[in-house]
Amino acid sequence: VTVWLVGAGPGDPGLVTVRGLELLRRCDVLVHDRLLAPELVAEAPGDALVLERDGLDQETVNDVLVAHGRAGREVVRLKGGDPFVFGRGGEEALALAAAGVPFGVVPGVSAIAAVPAAAGIPVTHRGLSSEVIVTAAHDAELDYARLAASGATLVFFMGLGRLGRLADGLIGAGLAADTPAAVVSRGTLPEQRAVLAPLGELAAEAAELATPALVVVGAVVGLAAALGALRSEGLALA
Amino acid sequence: VTVWLVGAGPGDPGLVTVRGLELLRRCDVLVHDRLLAPELVAEAPGDALVLERDGLDQETVNDVLVAHGRAGREVVRLKGGDPFVFGRGGEEALALAAAGVPFGVVPGVSAIAAVPAAAGIPVTHRGLSSEVIVTAAHDAELDYARLAASGATLVFFMGLGRLGRLADGLIGAGLAADTPAAVVSRGTLPEQRAVLAPLGELAAEAAELATPALVVVGAVVGLAAALGALRSEGLALA
Repeated sequence: VTVWLVGAGPGDPGLVTVRGLELLRRCDVLVHDRLLAPELVAEAPGDALVLERDGLDQETVNDVLVAHGRAGREVVRLKGGDPFVFGRGGEEALALAAAGVPFGVVPGVSAIAAVPAAAGIPVTHRGLSSEVIVTAAHDAELDYARLAASGATLVFFMGLGRLGRLADGLIGAGLAADTPAAVVSRGTLPEQRAVLAPLGELAAEAAELATPALVVVGAVVGLAAALGALRSEGLALA
Repeated sequence: VTVWLVGAGPGDPGLVTVRGLELLRRCDVLVHDRLLAPELVAEAPGDALVLERDGLDQETVNDVLVAHGRAGREVVRLKGGDPFVFGRGGEEALALAAAGVPFGVVPGVSAIAAVPAAAGIPVTHRGLSSEVIVTAAHDAELDYARLAASGATLVFFMGLGRLGRLADGLIGAGLAADTPAAVVSRGTLPEQRAVLAPLGELAAEAAELATPALVVVGAVVGLAAALGALRSEGLALA
């Protein structure tokens, strides 16, 4: 294998996988997202070529991966969270496959469960939720009636500017305004901030939070009061 | 912190997090699920007390965690996947919180995206799916009409004995019988087997597969033909 699509995890550099870190430490070329822990980027060998993905369009990123992979270099494409959860990893994988470049995927800890956990929210809990709906859909695509009727834990990857429309949409479709909800900003990082509020008050309460942020809606959010903030102290990369 | 709920990842021991492995290597007490890589269990210190969770009921597990935590021992509760994704981590966390025992959560790589990835399936893909529905609900609780109408990638944590009923339920509710679908058994492990088939043929095709298995339904499964099996060669724990 010459090109690895590697998930960096949700933010905290200690949440990278053992395999991902091994590959990072021996790569010839690192292509990384901008919003990654600098501690991880610094793990690449001193003589590795390090490229930031942001500023390049997707086609250029694909071309860079293909070119270095064809040249036989060990390439790590380090992506926030998991490569296949809203990460365009599939597009890069398809480009590599079409070019005949050997590649592999090392999954990462997705924000889906890790960011809620860092605020004391288990996305599933016996008796409260046995289903999680994860979406990055835009407003026009969201089927509020279906989401509101699901009874599932709802996890939204989205910009905070849409938070008011999201809450209005869900409440307008029948979800109770007092449904427990949360916004977790910069989850798992030292600067993490979480706001817990009934859905009807969430947009006002969370107005000051910074992106990236995850929105969680559902009965499980009510457990955060008992579980508190579970964010761990920082541990160094071994 | 004295008790850590740690996600072991989806099977492959190299997919544990760096932090999870650090905690495992210095624990006094390890309480682990049965279906975990033996390589991970072997990482506990030689003088650590190692307990297998299976065979203990949930209340006993909670009591064991509380008792060792109260005694000030460093306890690792190692769970398959992520502690808060169908892992009863919330119940253990609530028991620890109620007892006043300090605890933390180290998320893990959930099977949600990692197991499909190991079979060449990205659970999200631009133009195909921007939503994932993950459920471990029992037949009687599944709202087939809602799932069939969602257009989302569907991920089922379930026993294979129910596969026929699941497919019939989805097709009966209007999902096309030729919707791409997959069963991935023992995902990310050397003994992984994946069956890709149209939903209407999935139960017959996958009849011989072993549990644990994950079922994936949706257009993204169609990408597996191009992406192939992405399972990586084994790399040792560093």
